[in-house]
This record gives sequence, C-alpha cells and structure tokens, in this order.
Amino acid sequence: MSEQKTVTAALAIIGNEVLSGRTQDANLQYLAENLNAIGVRLMEVRVIPDIEDVIIKTVNELRAAFDYVFTTGGIGPTHDDITSAAVAKAFGLELVCDPEAERLVRSNYAKPEDVTPARLKMAHVPAGAALLMNPVSKAPGFRVENVYVLPGVPRIMQVMFDLIRHELVGGEPMLSREIRAHLPEGKMGGPLGEIQDRFPDAELGSYPFYREGRLGASIVVRHHDQARLDAAAAEVYAMMRALGGDPMED
Amino acid sequence: MSEQKTVTAALAIIGNEVLSGRTQDANLQYLAENLNAIGVRLMEVRVIPDIEDVIIKTVNELRAAFDYVFTTGGIGPTHDDITSAAVAKAFGLELVCDPEAERLVRSNYAKPEDVTPARLKMAHVPAGAALLMNPVSKAPGFRVENVYVLPGVPRIMQVMFDLIRHELVGGEPMLSREIRAHLPEGKMGGPLGEIQDRFPDAELGSYPFYREGRLGASIVVRHHDQARLDAAAAEVYAMMRALGGDPMED
Repeated sequence: MSEQKTVTAALAIIGNEVLSGRTQDANLQYLAENLNAIGVRLMEVRVIPDIEDVIIKTVNELRAAFDYVFTTGGIGPTHDDITSAAVAKAFGLELVCDPEAERLVRSNYAKPEDVTPARLKMAHVPAGAALLMNPVSKAPGFRVENVYVLPGVPRIMQVMFDLIRHELVGGEPMLSREIRAHLPEGKMGGPLGEIQDRFPDAELGSYPFYREGRLGASIVVRHHDQARLDAAAAEVYAMMRALGGDPMED
Repeated sequence: MSEQKTVTAALAIIGNEVLSGRTQDANLQYLAENLNAIGVRLMEVRVIPDIEDVIIKTVNELRAAFDYVFTTGGIGPTHDDITSAAVAKAFGLELVCDPEAERLVRSNYAKPEDVTPARLKMAHVPAGAALLMNPVSKAPGFRVENVYVLPGVPRIMQVMFDLIRHELVGGEPMLSREIRAHLPEGKMGGPLGEIQDRFPDAELGSYPFYREGRLGASIVVRHHDQARLDAAAAEVYAMMRALGGDPMED
C-alpha cells in the first residue's frame, strides 16, 4: 500500500455557455486522464458562470483546498471574458498589461490596426503571473501560485497543458483495471463490498451497462500498486465466476 | 426589464467515474435546458467523488445557496453508492428502510431471492423523504426539502425528472437568440461591450468557432423579455454588418 500523500487538483470550468447547456465541456475528461497519468488526482470540478464574485470565491476556495487548480474559459477578447481580472482580485493583485504577453498577442496579427483594444485585453494578467505559452493563437494563459488559468477552447487548452505538464509534481499514478460481466449489480453488490473490505486501500467502483439487450456491470479497480491491483482484480474475477458470470477485460 | 427574482438551481454530480474521466457526464446539459424551460436557472455544478464528507459538505453548501439542488449518481446497489446515506447525514436525519420504497424495489424482481441485501439498500432513504418515482427500474429517488436525489444513468434520470418538473416553481424562462458571423471575436469585442453597456439587463456571450477554414463567432443574447431580446439582437446584427460581416441565425 502506498503511504505517500495523494497530489490533488481541482478544475473550475468558467462559462455561462456550459451552465446553460449550450456547450458540452470537453476539458474535464482530458485533464482528468492526463493529470492521473502524472500522479495528480482530480478531486473536484466546479462549473460556474461568468460572474466576478463567484469566480473569486471559487478560486479562493479551491486553491486553499487542493494542490493544483486549473481554470478553463473566460480569457478571450470580449466583455464577458472576465477570468483574468477575477483571478487577479482573488489574489489581491493588480491586473496589468504584461509586455511579453502584449508582444505575443501582437505577434498573431499581421497589421498593427488589427490589434484592437479587445485583443489587447488578452495581454492583461495579474501582476507577477507566469505566462503559459499558447502556440496555437499566441494569447497566453498564466499561473499565479498554484492556479493555472487556461482557455476554454479544447484544442488550445490541450496544447497548452502539454507544455506545462512537466512542471507539475505528482505522486504515483493511479493504475486501474476494468472487468465486466453480464451480471446485474444487485447480485455483485454484496460480495463486491466484501472484496472492498479486504482491500480498503483499493478503490472499487461498479458501473451498470445495458448492451445488446443484456444487463451487466463493469467493475473498476484502482490502486497505486500493480501487485495489490492485480490481487483485488483476481478476487473480482473469482466473485464473477462464482455468480455464474463470464468476466471480460479489454 | 424583468423585476422578478431569478429562481436558481445547482447540480451535484456524484461519482468517481466522472472525475476520473472514465464516464462523460450527460446530465448537466439535460437539466440545464429543461430547468431553463420552466424558468429555473442552473447557476453552479459540482462534480465530486464518492466520499461521504465531501457529499455532505457540498449538499449543505448548495442547498443553502440555491433554490433547488439536484444530485445525480450514487444511489445504486453497490458499496460505492453512498449518496443516500450522505444526504441523510447532511440533513441530520436517520437513514431508514422506507416500506413503499421497499415495495417498489421488490416489484422489479420476479423471485423473492433476487431481492438481495444489496438491492434492498436502494429502499433506504432519509426519514421523512418524499419518494421520486422511477418507471424504468423501480428503485426510487427522493427529495428532502429543496434537494432532489436522482440516479446517474441518464435515461433513468431524464424520465424521473420529467415526472417532477411540474412541482418545480420557476420564474420566467430565459429566452435566447444566437447570431453568428465570420468575424473574429477580437473585432467584435469592442462594439459588443458597448451593446452590453446599453443593455445591462441582457446577457451577451461571445463564442468563437472555426469552421470550413474560417474563423467566426456566435453571439448569444439572452433576456427574459422578448422585446428587449429582439432589440439587443437588432444591435448585434447592425454591429456585424458595420464590420463587414454577414450575420446568420438558425
């Protein structure tokens, strides 16, 4: 069993368009999987509107509670992009036009007159923030302490995350196995709980499915340690076979 | 301009499988759109793990801050389904086996021996909770005060929500129009902010897109009042045309 501290993260998805159902978020899944790969566990996600007080409160709560905080959305050129200003206020910092950020923003436009005041807004970051590079559309994100401020557009967010992942210090990645059987959860529930009791250090989840007219469930086993993971998975196999099931694993 | 109070809601998505990226949530969008249709505004969503203390804290924070709270996930038959017990603790109520809930759960199985202890777990609700009917798989959800506890499986959650929507008291639904043009956000940002200043009661959002090799943005205008909505939308059309764009609307 791993004794080391779990390294944790939270994500704040900022944007009325996600809360209204107009836009389906695609950043949670990418960050969850890629953080886990470097041993950082996503522990909480909040989807919040473009309202300054809510952003300030959310950022301050999350940065106090988790090792890393990521925000997505609200750093574009329009009036509803208020994340940078709100994060500055959350830290009690001034929002300033950063010369390097300005150079980056300007580098994206051939003609100086295309650098509108709206676009220059994207060069404004909290004083002292570290810039996060954006190879796609140049306008940078930024980091203040443990808070990483990223754009909401998934293809840009993903490239930017790939450039910062080396600076994140994680623990051991969580390993997992997923074993499924055409057995109902209600039959596995009891014995599965007993396996969980024998492996309190593992995480066992049960997720029902309905496929080709047949009910079944996937049992996901997660553990930092490969040997303990395999031992718990072996018990899941045995339990499924004892119930007359035919366990499968990809 | 509408003077009435906005009726608000929050959603707690409970489940390690969503936080780990294994499962993509599909309930946020459904609830957001269907709540808006009855004049209830989804203001915050939290995705949290199957950890009792976190569920208790989240439910208590959200139910104090919003008119309605919905939870999805964690009310099935396995050991990791701890939502009902946690919600009971959040309210300081005992978790009890409800006779009507037990009858409903039992009605889903032909043979008495199929009603395993794991399945009977689904008949346990906080003392005094109102049951929420589940025509699909019978095991009910429940409501305590302003907190509605629903399953995570989208097709079941949706049917159950349809049965309770009549009891939700909303305000005026938010109306919206979405106008798009092949103009970059950075050009519209300035004048769009001026429109927002002239319509402080409207909500204007700008969402960039990249389609068929061309950059553009959708401007979403939202307002409770049709006339104000149309007046703001007319200004967006005029602004786009002044910038040489060709506004489109579905």
